[in-house]
Amino acid sequence: MEEPGTGRIGRTDSSGVICFLSDFGLGDDYVGLCKGVISTLAPAVNVIDLAHELPGFGLEYGAEMLEYATRYMPSDAVYLAVIDPGVGTDRRGLALRTPSGASLVGPDNGLLVPAAEALGGVEAAVSLTDDRYHVHPVSSTFHGRDIFAPVAARLATGTPISEFGEKVDPDTLVRLYLPEAEAKDPGGLQTRILGVDRYGNVRLSALQDTPGFEFGRLLKVDTPEGTLKCRYAETFGGSAVGSLLVVPDSHRRLSLSINQGNAAKALGLKIGHRVNITLLDTEV
Amino acid sequence: MEEPGTGRIGRTDSSGVICFLSDFGLGDDYVGLCKGVISTLAPAVNVIDLAHELPGFGLEYGAEMLEYATRYMPSDAVYLAVIDPGVGTDRRGLALRTPSGASLVGPDNGLLVPAAEALGGVEAAVSLTDDRYHVHPVSSTFHGRDIFAPVAARLATGTPISEFGEKVDPDTLVRLYLPEAEAKDPGGLQTRILGVDRYGNVRLSALQDTPGFEFGRLLKVDTPEGTLKCRYAETFGGSAVGSLLVVPDSHRRLSLSINQGNAAKALGLKIGHRVNITLLDTEV
Amino acid sequence: MEEPGTGRIGRTDSSGVICFLSDFGLGDDYVGLCKGVISTLAPAVNVIDLAHELPGFGLEYGAEMLEYATRYMPSDAVYLAVIDPGVGTDRRGLALRTPSGASLVGPDNGLLVPAAEALGGVEAAVSLTDDRYHVHPVSSTFHGRDIFAPVAARLATGTPISEFGEKVDPDTLVRLYLPEAEAKDPGGLQTRILGVDRYGNVRLSALQDTPGFEFGRLLKVDTPEGTLKCRYAETFGGSAVGSLLVVPDSHRRLSLSINQGNAAKALGLKIGHRVNITLLDTEV
Repeated sequence: MEEPGTGRIGRTDSSGVICFLSDFGLGDDYVGLCKGVISTLAPAVNVIDLAHELPGFGLEYGAEMLEYATRYMPSDAVYLAVIDPGVGTDRRGLALRTPSGASLVGPDNGLLVPAAEALGGVEAAVSLTDDRYHVHPVSSTFHGRDIFAPVAARLATGTPISEFGEKVDPDTLVRLYLPEAEAKDPGGLQTRILGVDRYGNVRLSALQDTPGFEFGRLLKVDTPEGTLKCRYAETFGGSAVGSLLVVPDSHRRLSLSINQGNAAKALGLKIGHRVNITLLDTEV
Repeated sequence: MEEPGTGRIGRTDSSGVICFLSDFGLGDDYVGLCKGVISTLAPAVNVIDLAHELPGFGLEYGAEMLEYATRYMPSDAVYLAVIDPGVGTDRRGLALRTPSGASLVGPDNGLLVPAAEALGGVEAAVSLTDDRYHVHPVSSTFHGRDIFAPVAARLATGTPISEFGEKVDPDTLVRLYLPEAEAKDPGGLQTRILGVDRYGNVRLSALQDTPGFEFGRLLKVDTPEGTLKCRYAETFGGSAVGSLLVVPDSHRRLSLSINQGNAAKALGLKIGHRVNITLLDTEV
Repeated sequence: MEEPGTGRIGRTDSSGVICFLSDFGLGDDYVGLCKGVISTLAPAVNVIDLAHELPGFGLEYGAEMLEYATRYMPSDAVYLAVIDPGVGTDRRGLALRTPSGASLVGPDNGLLVPAAEALGGVEAAVSLTDDRYHVHPVSSTFHGRDIFAPVAARLATGTPISEFGEKVDPDTLVRLYLPEAEAKDPGGLQTRILGVDRYGNVRLSALQDTPGFEFGRLLKVDTPEGTLKCRYAETFGGSAVGSLLVVPDSHRRLSLSINQGNAAKALGLKIGHRVNITLLDTEV
């Protein structure tokens, strides 16, 4: 439908979409209050919840998730991303414009930049200093509701980014280190565990398109909890229930998985652990 | 409002609705990415989340839930259902059309059929072989996002089902056994535990309209953990806090419940357990 | 953007919004079935989920949450609130109209009244006795789907409140005691724990604007588990990781919090516990 490689899909009209990522959880009213503000200011805008509960994940994983989501959202989406441990300090609030027509709103802590780069780069950046666009009284702990949500709503209805405050030099934005696998030697990868999903799949930092990784290839996997051998497989289909596999995950990274089992529990693995993968020559 | 018995409500306009059931959970971005694809292709369509977290439930329960939901959704809804343990194998992807104007999209594993039958039967079935309607690159593990969501979006905006691939004989669709209570003898029921909800109510396979079950009737309940006596009640109102009851649940099946308590924990019951219920003659 | 103090934001058009609060959870289909009913009857209405999972909270906290949400929802929103332990008894179902243009639907158990008062008071109250506006068959345990959701949908599309049943004297509505801090003496507060959020923040009944509470003030905190000293701070910014603080929460109440820690677990505190706070004179 879209061109492979770009991964983006042509959109058929211009009603606004806000793609909303936070760590607010769904057990409280935080997400609902932000949506109340958006609906009040921009009644026709459609809010897509990307995720609000990231068990065992942090800022770095949120940035990766937001970056990845740009492949599947409308090209003119507004990204509202609030994982904000620095709320109430002097960290800046940001709105970013990209050449694709998409924009991004959230704290200046690195969360937005990888997604902005995936959308063509930061064309303009503004610090959200104009409090006419905030909901008053502005709380010291909930800028998602009082600053970021109203600015996202106004962006989605066409207010130019320059209205929201002072221009910022894109080179001054806080940047995060987004983990990638490091090649250890031609025959293997040194990776790190980014997170564990609800099925117990262990998500590694290594990207799927690594030279030498062909489906069916035999691998040696070294973890802090021991060494295992398994295959690189395209899917679970065809493997025995309970067998360990390395598979590509939904984000085009490699994942350690057990067919119909919980790999993280079975192998005793946790976020941050190092995992080294070696390509084995022989098909055993 | 609608005719009792049909359970469906007249709809006042034709903007599209997609009723979305999955086992993706809300702790990851799976649901959000599917909605990004839908919103890109069909911006005016309204997605209703039926459920995405089914603790202790499986394919069979998902099929029952989807079937039940047909009573409460717009008559022209598109049902997008993705509980898909066979993703990546050669199981077919399906779109089904029903005489009611509703359609269904998901894997050919039995999940869709009971709902299709509740909507009047399978009028046409198509295998989703035309990859012009898929989002590329198509992953081997996430057909929800790459195949089922874009097809559902196109169905909701009026693309005819015949566009999506090769016609399939409805008689070849995979079917599930949907559990019902078996009458053991005129005085009782042999049932099975379908699941446990978040309140600890134990949902049984027996349907509510079973002969002999009148409100107030005394019952003997045999479980793997012991035998109990209790009443068949219409509601919790009027019963003492902590008392065990058999009540009709929201799906018109029978449920073992404790007023303001957790029946599953208190009785040690789990999904799959057999529960036999005997009608007692005397009112004790 | 809006006037401080009123807390409400001007709305730019009149498409309907339903603000939906329940204790149904997201692990079952309860919320989705209610939305199916709403979407069938009122396809253009936008449903905002305020919250559906309130761990460790009850009716009283739901009433506080609904009241608080009125500051951030469109002025003509319909509030659909279903925390309904008395379902199936003879407790009334209600629709309330307020002078702001907002209306509220739910059980007559006190849940709606504080929000109605925040919206200007109960201008008219109706008992939902006209079953032409219900979805049939009406279940005895799920009035959210069968009575409250269809009435909310009709209210959002303009049906006058008087259509839904018999007029009720507002003085006869069930009212809840909403907890506030009690002043113990000029130098302190006697408060109660309303709940614990997912970060482990301990939410107290005391309101933020209490005389003598200035940022930086040293406090003595007496809990059932011991006595502590800490500061009243505006935010976590600037405090050491692991330090205990009293901070204003997102609802303008006081909260006991640990910077990047779980205060409820660390201090052994639970909902309902009494917490006394004494203002200390000296800055240590």
